[in-house]
Amino acid sequence: MMKKFVFGNPIETDAIVCREGIVESQEKVPYFSRVDDRQGEGCLFAYEMGGHDIIYGLGESIRGINKRGWIYESNCTDDPIHTENKRSLYAAHNFFLVDGKGRFGVFVDAPQKVTFDFGYYERDRLTITVDPGGFILYILEGESLRQIVREFRHAIGRSYIPPKWGMGYGQSRWGYQNAQDIRQVVRQHREAGVPLDSVYMDIDYMERYKDFTVDKGKFPDFPEFVKEMKGQNIHLVPIIDAGVKIEEGYPAYEEGIENGYFCKKEDGTEFVGGVWPGRVHFPDMLKEEARSWFGQKYKFLIDQGIDGFWNDMNEPALFYGEDHLKDIFRELGEYQKKELDIETFFGMKDMVLGLSNHPKDYQAFYHEYKGEVIRHDKVHNLYGYYMTRAAGEAFEKIEPDKRLLMFSRASYIGMHRYGGVWMGDNCSWWSHLLLNLQMLPGLNMCGFLYTGADLGGFGSDVTEDLLLRWLELGIFTPLMRNHSAQGTRLQEFYRFGHVESFRNIIGLRYALLPYLYSEYVKAAMTDDMMFLPLPFAYPDDPAAAGVEDQLMVGEGMMIAPVYRQNARGRYVYLPEEMKLYRMRSEESMEVQVLPAGHHYVEAELDQVLIFIRPDHVAPLAKGGCHVEEVDVSCLRLLHFIKTEAVYELYDDDGYRKITDWEQGVTKITVAVNGEVTASGSKTGTYVLI
Amino acid sequence: MMKKFVFGNPIETDAIVCREGIVESQEKVPYFSRVDDRQGEGCLFAYEMGGHDIIYGLGESIRGINKRGWIYESNCTDDPIHTENKRSLYAAHNFFLVDGKGRFGVFVDAPQKVTFDFGYYERDRLTITVDPGGFILYILEGESLRQIVREFRHAIGRSYIPPKWGMGYGQSRWGYQNAQDIRQVVRQHREAGVPLDSVYMDIDYMERYKDFTVDKGKFPDFPEFVKEMKGQNIHLVPIIDAGVKIEEGYPAYEEGIENGYFCKKEDGTEFVGGVWPGRVHFPDMLKEEARSWFGQKYKFLIDQGIDGFWNDMNEPALFYGEDHLKDIFRELGEYQKKELDIETFFGMKDMVLGLSNHPKDYQAFYHEYKGEVIRHDKVHNLYGYYMTRAAGEAFEKIEPDKRLLMFSRASYIGMHRYGGVWMGDNCSWWSHLLLNLQMLPGLNMCGFLYTGADLGGFGSDVTEDLLLRWLELGIFTPLMRNHSAQGTRLQEFYRFGHVESFRNIIGLRYALLPYLYSEYVKAAMTDDMMFLPLPFAYPDDPAAAGVEDQLMVGEGMMIAPVYRQNARGRYVYLPEEMKLYRMRSEESMEVQVLPAGHHYVEAELDQVLIFIRPDHVAPLAKGGCHVEEVDVSCLRLLHFIKTEAVYELYDDDGYRKITDWEQGVTKITVAVNGEVTASGSKTGTYVLI
Repeated sequence: MMKKFVFGNPIETDAIVCREGIVESQEKVPYFSRVDDRQGEGCLFAYEMGGHDIIYGLGESIRGINKRGWIYESNCTDDPIHTENKRSLYAAHNFFLVDGKGRFGVFVDAPQKVTFDFGYYERDRLTITVDPGGFILYILEGESLRQIVREFRHAIGRSYIPPKWGMGYGQSRWGYQNAQDIRQVVRQHREAGVPLDSVYMDIDYMERYKDFTVDKGKFPDFPEFVKEMKGQNIHLVPIIDAGVKIEEGYPAYEEGIENGYFCKKEDGTEFVGGVWPGRVHFPDMLKEEARSWFGQKYKFLIDQGIDGFWNDMNEPALFYGEDHLKDIFRELGEYQKKELDIETFFGMKDMVLGLSNHPKDYQAFYHEYKGEVIRHDKVHNLYGYYMTRAAGEAFEKIEPDKRLLMFSRASYIGMHRYGGVWMGDNCSWWSHLLLNLQMLPGLNMCGFLYTGADLGGFGSDVTEDLLLRWLELGIFTPLMRNHSAQGTRLQEFYRFGHVESFRNIIGLRYALLPYLYSEYVKAAMTDDMMFLPLPFAYPDDPAAAGVEDQLMVGEGMMIAPVYRQNARGRYVYLPEEMKLYRMRSEESMEVQVLPAGHHYVEAELDQVLIFIRPDHVAPLAKGGCHVEEVDVSCLRLLHFIKTEAVYELYDDDGYRKITDWEQGVTKITVAVNGEVTASGSKTGTYVLI
Repeated sequence: MMKKFVFGNPIETDAIVCREGIVESQEKVPYFSRVDDRQGEGCLFAYEMGGHDIIYGLGESIRGINKRGWIYESNCTDDPIHTENKRSLYAAHNFFLVDGKGRFGVFVDAPQKVTFDFGYYERDRLTITVDPGGFILYILEGESLRQIVREFRHAIGRSYIPPKWGMGYGQSRWGYQNAQDIRQVVRQHREAGVPLDSVYMDIDYMERYKDFTVDKGKFPDFPEFVKEMKGQNIHLVPIIDAGVKIEEGYPAYEEGIENGYFCKKEDGTEFVGGVWPGRVHFPDMLKEEARSWFGQKYKFLIDQGIDGFWNDMNEPALFYGEDHLKDIFRELGEYQKKELDIETFFGMKDMVLGLSNHPKDYQAFYHEYKGEVIRHDKVHNLYGYYMTRAAGEAFEKIEPDKRLLMFSRASYIGMHRYGGVWMGDNCSWWSHLLLNLQMLPGLNMCGFLYTGADLGGFGSDVTEDLLLRWLELGIFTPLMRNHSAQGTRLQEFYRFGHVESFRNIIGLRYALLPYLYSEYVKAAMTDDMMFLPLPFAYPDDPAAAGVEDQLMVGEGMMIAPVYRQNARGRYVYLPEEMKLYRMRSEESMEVQVLPAGHHYVEAELDQVLIFIRPDHVAPLAKGGCHVEEVDVSCLRLLHFIKTEAVYELYDDDGYRKITDWEQGVTKITVAVNGEVTASGSKTGTYVLI
């Protein structure tokens, strides 16, 4: 049951696409009291929580699976230091669930800033504050948390499905400069026997950071290079940034100016921001013609053989607004004349520090959206979404039958139909390995199935053990990419002493691919989650409710990664008896049945813990050096059979759009005596292990 | 066994004061290979660790109890953002223990920067790099980890013991402006029934941030106010900063100039830095006459009734060096003339951001130390130590028989004889609650027994649950202070909804005081640790080796605080059978005997877990509103008696210097039948609970 409550004149976000079953209500919003109309200051709702109510959701945000006890702001922000005190990351995912005294879901459909106080000011009080402007509140009820999520997901439309190679391993670094660098990365992976499907190209591949250009000096024959890489089963994935460099003669700039595609200031001139290319204009992604134009620009790279992209800097990040920077230089001139005291100093420092992503700059430009001129801050959270929508809509025309890889940094609910998200510019911190795990179910709730964090951490310096432990979680996330920033320690796997451990663990991912790909596609097609907090699978188990560091992956599997340095094991809670596969590689494993309850489970640095639920199986392929080598016709089955297990394996060619997914299903049945039978599209040979 | 190896011409740090038993060796350093002499680039030693060797120590530093897997720099630094990637905090505590393949202790006595790579570059390689200059390496061996620590502690001299009121609760905030503010803080604690012994005075009490001044507008009659507070059993604890404001007519400035007490540049003029007061000179704390002069200055406040201080900004923190700032303003002028591109922007931003604590500024001034002129960076890590030594040596003269409260932000080993340390400017992060616990044993190893973190966190915004959980650890730390920064959420306990929980938990601290004070004094007098990692008490238990979130407190008690938001319990490892007291207050408790092994133990938000070892007791007093109300003559005993327990209770008047500590000991014996007998200085009544 999904009820809709409209306040003021909301700006349509196109988040909800399926309105069937949604009831528009004129009644009072259930659960919440409207505390204060606060004309011009936004709208505030409050809910009194029970002492142990749990809150799930908010997609990409900091803190635990249970979001209670902090205040969050949906305000897409380029802030790479994700410490516990931050309120906004790159995304605005305004859907959450309350489970306790009451059980319901809430979606605040509002493109402006929304603040969620989940017991921050007062321990038992939940408030939602929507910044000035109209908005829509949806309240969802259902028989279970999972059912509420499904209903919400149905309303927001089917989640993006990547090409299968997008679930292979990708290597990235802000710093690969040219074809030679990339060739070397590929060669060293192949030599070390570490599987690899893609290499990401960060901003340096472009000509002076200009979108839809390739630097000829660095890539003398780019189409040929793309082909060369394809010949080695490597997909190149270039980055696309939001800002378009201001440069005479640069087609994207010239066309944008000529056709009025860029965001303008109040005086009608184009807004100038500073990002990587220096001075840029921002395409008005909300304006239909501009969006269509920008999307078609991707064709420049697709025509050269590219079949995947990542959209970046689309909060949009703003190192500075040009007018603002000029003001600051003027003020710095004044400071220079003053006596050099402590006020001078802090004034100056704060001024310079506060220059980036300044709210005033976001109030300085405008969009044309659905026939209206709207100031940017009123629709700020849509920008990244609409940039990715630009690409997604264009891909439908350019490659109507093919899945292209696409994920974005900034997002809003609705964008999940066009691409995935990575979890932004994290750090090489053990706490961010745990955060990676904790973000997964919230993102799934909001429609983002294709996701993962920068393995090993983007900022700051990694250690070998952190990278390996992180990989041991990363092998389960659909997007599995090792990415790091210029100036940090190099973190390709082959740079470390124990490359065999990395090879083995990543090999395990490829072996698990039939399971992970099946679970992904089934989740997408049935509006379900791939990563579930334990209470979603065990709603009646009070002990499961407190588990913040384990997840169900699909129907049959539970994971419990180690995320503490120097740990040789960890505590695990089993809501029911399970079979533990303690795996060093796809070949080397110890198997043990554990009773329900709390356990300390050993896991050395090179061991992954996989738990199989009773009467479930998870298929394991032979692995491979890239996704196309993974053969689903010959599978070994991780299994825990008490009576009988049935597994629905999904497979396809990996790149064509999925139309009738049930055609790709093979039903594998394992009887209590160990006999395996299969029926469906592509049966093969199956061995219990 | 403590062996001494001298390299080059070391600068004497006065860290080691008892040389008895130390063998000066001409042989090769055991365990280590000297990898590289690297003339002029420092000296590098390497040790090959076993795969599971554990490293303890380094005092105040980030990461776990086991320091393995990171690289640390001893380089006292004012950096308030203690994320996992930082290498230096405020202190330089160059003592550590290796336990595994070999078992030994290492002390690098060097006042310059020292780098400890504990498996960062290579997983199994430990290296020590000492910056150019002489140094002394000590290698310690002994029959146990604890024995090695005792030997080291004996060599560095007896740890500081605070007055007993310094183990009461202290309330602090950078923001209390005047007598009215402080009166209100005290009144609100008393009204809420929350015990309180001290209020800290941050920089605002001074006249324009000038050391050894009190702002007359804010405190019209300061001695009278001190007396008024004493009448309410409140000790005021003012801050003293390292830098002396440059201001004509200000005595400290005038005297310092006149007598050449300030640090000078190469050209012989005084170095000018910028800190809170604006332009300052730094007293040359290393120069004996200057130190003696600076120490005597504390008398100004002692004469007005003050009996405790905290020394701050003594790394020394440097917001800017004046010459450096002038250069930057000049460069900013140049930037303004350039085109505003992205290089301009980052160049400017990095320049301004890098202004504080810049290595070049630390190379720009000099000390006179033991007859030599030494550039600051060569002795950087001694500055905070010697500032506190200045105070400590002066206190010996001003109040020879009395213990005064003293703790510092920056420190080096040796300073532990003159005062304690707080753990610096932390944040309101759950991860910093755990860090607080993890720092305790390392600090104890290095002699710092009087220590604690800013409860609730100094920077960023606290939540009620974080503050309460943090208090549940804080009640065990000798320094128990709630401190927070201007601009953050107010965090006095009475500002939150559930003040009774705070009152109860802090009441428990006062009830535990007889135990904590006894354990503190015994640890100080016997060169022992008060907080022990589990393997120090259970060296033969391999499972104890991995425990990073529990500590032994003294002989009889183990603590296991909850440090995760929304958690209603936690996992606890018991190396042996123990009795659990789950306490809501000194009166309300549940008692349970748990067998050895792994347990999930429930602990609601307002519950503290205290574990008592077999044949041990821990006395509990009736509590009180301040330390003087705590009555040790009538004690209840937390106990777990299998055969017999003997407890040595220590007590004294709380403020006189301790000469013959054994005179203060009462021996309490509990027989298996529950019979309690006592002998010694002050026997009382004892009840088992």
